[in-house]
Amino acid sequence: MSNDLLSKGLSLVRGWFEPPPEKVLERIRDELRECADLIGGEVSARQRAAKLAKTYAELDENGRRAFLRILLTEFGPEPERIDAAYDAYRAARGSDEQWQAEAALRESLRSPRSRILTQFSASDAGVHFLVDLRAELLDFLRDDPLLAALDLELQGLLASWFDVALLELQRITWHSPADVLERLMQYEAVHEIESWQDLKNRLDSDRRCYAFFHPRMPSVPLIFVEVALTEGLAGDVQQLLDVSAPLFATERADTAIFYSISNTQKGLRGISFGHFLLKRVIDDLRRDFPKLERFATLSPIPGLVRWYRAHPEALADAFTASDWRRLRAAGAPEGMELLQRLLETPEIAGTEAWREALAAPLLRAAARYLLATENGRALDPVARFHLGNGARIERLNWLADTSPKGWRQSWAIMVNYRYEPDKLQDRIDAYERDGLIEATSAVRRLAR
Amino acid sequence: MSNDLLSKGLSLVRGWFEPPPEKVLERIRDELRECADLIGGEVSARQRAAKLAKTYAELDENGRRAFLRILLTEFGPEPERIDAAYDAYRAARGSDEQWQAEAALRESLRSPRSRILTQFSASDAGVHFLVDLRAELLDFLRDDPLLAALDLELQGLLASWFDVALLELQRITWHSPADVLERLMQYEAVHEIESWQDLKNRLDSDRRCYAFFHPRMPSVPLIFVEVALTEGLAGDVQQLLDVSAPLFATERADTAIFYSISNTQKGLRGISFGHFLLKRVIDDLRRDFPKLERFATLSPIPGLVRWYRAHPEALADAFTASDWRRLRAAGAPEGMELLQRLLETPEIAGTEAWREALAAPLLRAAARYLLATENGRALDPVARFHLGNGARIERLNWLADTSPKGWRQSWAIMVNYRYEPDKLQDRIDAYERDGLIEATSAVRRLAR
Amino acid sequence: MSNDLLSKGLSLVRGWFEPPPEKVLERIRDELRECADLIGGEVSARQRAAKLAKTYAELDENGRRAFLRILLTEFGPEPERIDAAYDAYRAARGSDEQWQAEAALRESLRSPRSRILTQFSASDAGVHFLVDLRAELLDFLRDDPLLAALDLELQGLLASWFDVALLELQRITWHSPADVLERLMQYEAVHEIESWQDLKNRLDSDRRCYAFFHPRMPSVPLIFVEVALTEGLAGDVQQLLDVSAPLFATERADTAIFYSISNTQKGLRGISFGHFLLKRVIDDLRRDFPKLERFATLSPIPGLVRWYRAHPEALADAFTASDWRRLRAAGAPEGMELLQRLLETPEIAGTEAWREALAAPLLRAAARYLLATENGRALDPVARFHLGNGARIERLNWLADTSPKGWRQSWAIMVNYRYEPDKLQDRIDAYERDGLIEATSAVRRLAR
Amino acid sequence: MSNDLLSKGLSLVRGWFEPPPEKVLERIRDELRECADLIGGEVSARQRAAKLAKTYAELDENGRRAFLRILLTEFGPEPERIDAAYDAYRAARGSDEQWQAEAALRESLRSPRSRILTQFSASDAGVHFLVDLRAELLDFLRDDPLLAALDLELQGLLASWFDVALLELQRITWHSPADVLERLMQYEAVHEIESWQDLKNRLDSDRRCYAFFHPRMPSVPLIFVEVALTEGLAGDVQQLLDVSAPLFATERADTAIFYSISNTQKGLRGISFGHFLLKRVIDDLRRDFPKLERFATLSPIPGLVRWYRAHPEALADAFTASDWRRLRAAGAPEGMELLQRLLETPEIAGTEAWREALAAPLLRAAARYLLATENGRALDPVARFHLGNGARIERLNWLADTSPKGWRQSWAIMVNYRYEPDKLQDRIDAYERDGLIEATSAVRRLAR
Repeated sequence: MSNDLLSKGLSLVRGWFEPPPEKVLERIRDELRECADLIGGEVSARQRAAKLAKTYAELDENGRRAFLRILLTEFGPEPERIDAAYDAYRAARGSDEQWQAEAALRESLRSPRSRILTQFSASDAGVHFLVDLRAELLDFLRDDPLLAALDLELQGLLASWFDVALLELQRITWHSPADVLERLMQYEAVHEIESWQDLKNRLDSDRRCYAFFHPRMPSVPLIFVEVALTEGLAGDVQQLLDVSAPLFATERADTAIFYSISNTQKGLRGISFGHFLLKRVIDDLRRDFPKLERFATLSPIPGLVRWYRAHPEALADAFTASDWRRLRAAGAPEGMELLQRLLETPEIAGTEAWREALAAPLLRAAARYLLATENGRALDPVARFHLGNGARIERLNWLADTSPKGWRQSWAIMVNYRYEPDKLQDRIDAYERDGLIEATSAVRRLAR
Repeated sequence: MSNDLLSKGLSLVRGWFEPPPEKVLERIRDELRECADLIGGEVSARQRAAKLAKTYAELDENGRRAFLRILLTEFGPEPERIDAAYDAYRAARGSDEQWQAEAALRESLRSPRSRILTQFSASDAGVHFLVDLRAELLDFLRDDPLLAALDLELQGLLASWFDVALLELQRITWHSPADVLERLMQYEAVHEIESWQDLKNRLDSDRRCYAFFHPRMPSVPLIFVEVALTEGLAGDVQQLLDVSAPLFATERADTAIFYSISNTQKGLRGISFGHFLLKRVIDDLRRDFPKLERFATLSPIPGLVRWYRAHPEALADAFTASDWRRLRAAGAPEGMELLQRLLETPEIAGTEAWREALAAPLLRAAARYLLATENGRALDPVARFHLGNGARIERLNWLADTSPKGWRQSWAIMVNYRYEPDKLQDRIDAYERDGLIEATSAVRRLAR
Repeated sequence: MSNDLLSKGLSLVRGWFEPPPEKVLERIRDELRECADLIGGEVSARQRAAKLAKTYAELDENGRRAFLRILLTEFGPEPERIDAAYDAYRAARGSDEQWQAEAALRESLRSPRSRILTQFSASDAGVHFLVDLRAELLDFLRDDPLLAALDLELQGLLASWFDVALLELQRITWHSPADVLERLMQYEAVHEIESWQDLKNRLDSDRRCYAFFHPRMPSVPLIFVEVALTEGLAGDVQQLLDVSAPLFATERADTAIFYSISNTQKGLRGISFGHFLLKRVIDDLRRDFPKLERFATLSPIPGLVRWYRAHPEALADAFTASDWRRLRAAGAPEGMELLQRLLETPEIAGTEAWREALAAPLLRAAARYLLATENGRALDPVARFHLGNGARIERLNWLADTSPKGWRQSWAIMVNYRYEPDKLQDRIDAYERDGLIEATSAVRRLAR
Repeated sequence: MSNDLLSKGLSLVRGWFEPPPEKVLERIRDELRECADLIGGEVSARQRAAKLAKTYAELDENGRRAFLRILLTEFGPEPERIDAAYDAYRAARGSDEQWQAEAALRESLRSPRSRILTQFSASDAGVHFLVDLRAELLDFLRDDPLLAALDLELQGLLASWFDVALLELQRITWHSPADVLERLMQYEAVHEIESWQDLKNRLDSDRRCYAFFHPRMPSVPLIFVEVALTEGLAGDVQQLLDVSAPLFATERADTAIFYSISNTQKGLRGISFGHFLLKRVIDDLRRDFPKLERFATLSPIPGLVRWYRAHPEALADAFTASDWRRLRAAGAPEGMELLQRLLETPEIAGTEAWREALAAPLLRAAARYLLATENGRALDPVARFHLGNGARIERLNWLADTSPKGWRQSWAIMVNYRYEPDKLQDRIDAYERDGLIEATSAVRRLAR
């Protein structure tokens, strides 16, 4: 591209960041160019990529933004080549040459920047670097939407690298490497792990933990799931996380509860492993515990309170006359005042006197929220994930997560999604095609 | 695409193959469509891909050709979408939207067929199936050049999957798995392995063997190199392969001879690992044997006789008056008659009486051939590989491979390419940029 | 001990072997003494043991016999110390000091030779050396019974080292290390493995092979068992070993046939792993193939013909009048002439015309032999092994092993021993305590 | 043995422990008898041993003591058999039968109790159980010296099982299994590990940690050593343990400091691995860091203050007139008063004003203590260990361990023992044979 355009490209972002001195920009350009050129065999090109990774690592934020801008705007495919390839493609349309011309057009769009990114893979921190780079890029996107085009290219590369066929399922136990366990502690997103002792409890003989690993990031669990073996459906996360609870005798287990699923790499956003993980884990559990009859999650409802905040009238609608009667008896405030407080300080639902009276209307509100759809999709992100994998909404649980976070996001309500291996496919089809949400009649009744 | 075009697509190949019955074609189409649709979540889509792989495996050759044709011609990107994306790209050129439009154009070229191919990866025989598919596709290409476009797409996919960063270097020993060793025997392309005993000899303590493996094809060496530890530069492959030769005391070794490098997967043609393998192996050997001073190959010259067949005058030119004198004395035929016999039945160079007299002119011919370039590249394919990796032509060896194949391709002459770790980069640059071939003065003198 | 006794010790064997020169004997003595002395810390003592192992390896047979003699006779415990310890023990009998005195007496019997043997363990070839040493010692025993005392000491040491708790069960497949597989071929004692192809067939998906390994001999299977998965009880070993037989679909398997069990290390004679191996293998197979209903061997009867050779009258007794009639009709020789030929050239039982007529009397003879006991133990060594492990005699099979060896040892008859996991214990007790041999009523009927 | 003797055996200990009810004793006896009998094949005998282990685990302390007593007194060898074997041995003395008779006498001393103990090995907690059993037995010994005889037998068994040839050296890193690391924290005996963070620091790239493992206790480090790579000889343990110290650039390292060696299993007391560990670790370090020139410990002197407490006059002797002068100047108490305080509250040596003045006399005292011998052995247990392994006393370090424990046991003085690989053997010989203690001249000068 012309230098004009570039300086324009950079000037565009001048408003919000101070580009580094021209000398630094030149060094970045030189190194990128060397990488793109592939001069001197791939081995040395990769060495140069390693150097480039080091350069990037040593830049400050402004430097990094400039780096990514330059990569995007100065190392794209040649417009003239694209034009020529497209013209040839148009001309060949309908003839035998069409396919070759299509391939040539695709090739004309392969950019020096994709060559550069590919080479990063062999730097010392290797694959990991690219994953971290994308995590950072996703942050920069907010201020600099131009970079979205670069993100697309990077995501495509990572998606092929992190194809689930390349991942390895591993069971995590207390005998797993400490650095892996340390990462579990760091990444657990659903129910924070507080100490090595807490972690050890979650890896006990009545638990299972599984993770996917990539052969080139052998110590980094990409996604992991924590499972508890129980008798009957667990409806209370406090009990599952209680370090002092006695060990459960697994020979009595008839249910596997997936009580936490965490993605660890922001840089792999949009590349999904979750449903594969669940499928593989269910297979593994069935082999080890042939008596298991039920596979279900105990899941948060992260969007519940937030959604009602935007639709307070729908919350009001969930309270029947008899609900209000019982609340009055319990000394709760009336009408909008109560609703407002439920939306602003959801934890007040836990106030001792009101608890019992609030169970019915709030569970009703939760059931309605979970069963509703928008554009053929469930409203809640976690619901979307599990319904899209073929689960059914099995049961709602009152006072299931009484942590501050639990109150704040969903009045301490949690939900079990159940996986019935034989019915997954039909349910996925019904949900994906027709937006049908599968739920037990108990849940449906609750929603009335 | 329209059915017309398709039937045309198939009719094109009618001349050389009998397409399978319409019923079979329909089944293929249905299964491909199901795969491409991605309905019902990726897990089940992948199951369908496994089914598709099975279908393919059970087809006869005609069926497979039709399968690939259909995949190419009926599962390409939508032309209208490409046109629209290109128009948008042209309009955005020079503006901030250019990059996003470029990404959209690239996206419009992503085809259902690439989605289908990607899914193959999770079938039972997984990755391996795709590699074998491409090997077969390469065979079909000869009669059906149309498929080249499909090959390009497949190669791109495999190249990202088999990125060298994903490969593992392993040492192969007599303690390696039997199925891995069996494959070595099967794939050794340079000096055939005749028996398990022969193989065991090549894995003895005075040898090293290394291979690259892919995590999803753990028993398949993708490329491997056989190394002998010697004192001084080996110039004779018979000796290296002699099963009855005594074990060499490795503490005396100052040289590592790479006497065989074989790629095993035709389906990975064009995706190169060789130079990485050599680099990694040299690093490994230096660590284990700090006294090693020299790393060199003992390589065939596969194009030598063939090239002189096309340039007999150049061969004549390699014979000096004194060469002819000595040949006469040895009772050899004169002039063109001798040359013709050398080109037609190269093994006559080994006729006892003439051997000594032929050494000088044939080594001269070999040296000239190796030092010559065409379009800045060496003439010999093996030479191109090693020079492109930074090696230098170290020495030519007379009577170095007296097997029938050795005689036929290069009058039993072999060459040592030497790798000097510190000088690789400069040599690669000189060769790649300026077509300069590095050789010892002894080799240069030979060529005069 | 006194030199007199030693020279006597050596002279005793003068008859049959020529002791090495005095100089060599002195070197052996010196090195043994150094080893026994433990001067200078254990590390260096072990180095000296390694030297001693080398010395032994370089001796010829006479030298080795002398070495072992010296080790036995000159490095025993001190008689005076034993006497003193015994006297103290007698005196302490019945008092509190008894136990300490017993320990001291035991200690007084620990010999320098046992210290020396223990140290061998850390020589390069380590444990393996000791195992081989004992194998050789067992050979020497035949001419030199004196060495039996040394053998006892060595067996005790090896028994503690090779305690089954230290062994690892591994499944052997075509993916196992080649050196391990090579050893299987070498050691298979029941049905010779003829080639790598034959071996590969035995490791196919309708077969299983398991072996025990010791952590310090990781490439050496100590004992291994070959298993075929079948539908119904296999009664014919030819079929099992047929390389060209089609692969059996294991999902139909209801029976696991153990068709070969081989100990590989003569030097571990008397240290038994076989029953542990079977138990562990049955556990493993039940987990992998829950549908298996039957675990049985297909075993040779190695002592059958040999035993009847010593008891020809018992063989005569197995022929009924109708047997003789049928044999006459088949043109067989009469009476003793036939019996003699059956005992001298057992393969004549396979002569086509007589085959059918011989089946009944020879199966009767086999059944009687297998059901007979001597001193509460079965007559046949293989029978003793399986009955001692709780198996029952399930079925006799005519023409089951028609190899020359099969004819020679048991008129081609083989037997199935069946393992019923729930009944093993009772049967072991019945056999061990009361000499009761468990057999099916079909086998009992045969014996009448 | 007679019941009389047994009841006497138990009565002996009545004084200090209350034996469990007769019913329990009978159950113990029954189970032990079953184990000893070996009825019904070894497999089931081992199952019974597992049951016995469970029984033991469920007993209280009194029950366990009784268990061990019964095992010792009721399951010994038969006295009559010993007598007969001894008589035969005496008779055979000097004849060819002597060796066989010696073996028979040894055999007569093999007790049912040793058969029982051997079988424990295959119980679920296996080998580990026996190791723990002995640890407990060692505790009981203090009140019940009779059990020493049982301990001897158990130690013999464990010594053969834990022969160093069976152990595996493993490097411990932050990638090691968490349960292994947890045990390091638990067992570190020299410098307590305070947290996972502290541990991670000790496994950083400028550190090494190695441990020996037994194949049947794969998560239990039996002994481990912590190593710091430094430039020059480290004389200060605070600095080595400082979590916040910057990472040392290992390419500058010329010295490896072994700053902590810990045995973890009390039950393996008397079975020594330490010197093997050091030897193997030194080999490993030399391979990884060819530039290392010095291998040395930074060791405590655990017996220093304790010894001077028993020899106060020797401490007085270490103070010269000028020492006293300087102390007076520093305001320290005079003569015996100071000495007494140094012996009673050694940490007063760290009182700021006196520190400098105390360095000379206390280092002198330490040097004299370390160089002194008693019966040809060093006085200090740690010194005995390292001198016995061929180390030399290299340097004494003032204020090297200022932890409370450091003050209390050795006035915060530590010592470097240096391992010079080429000289180990000579030094071991000199020390073991002649009681010569090797030390640098600097240390010798200090002692004057």
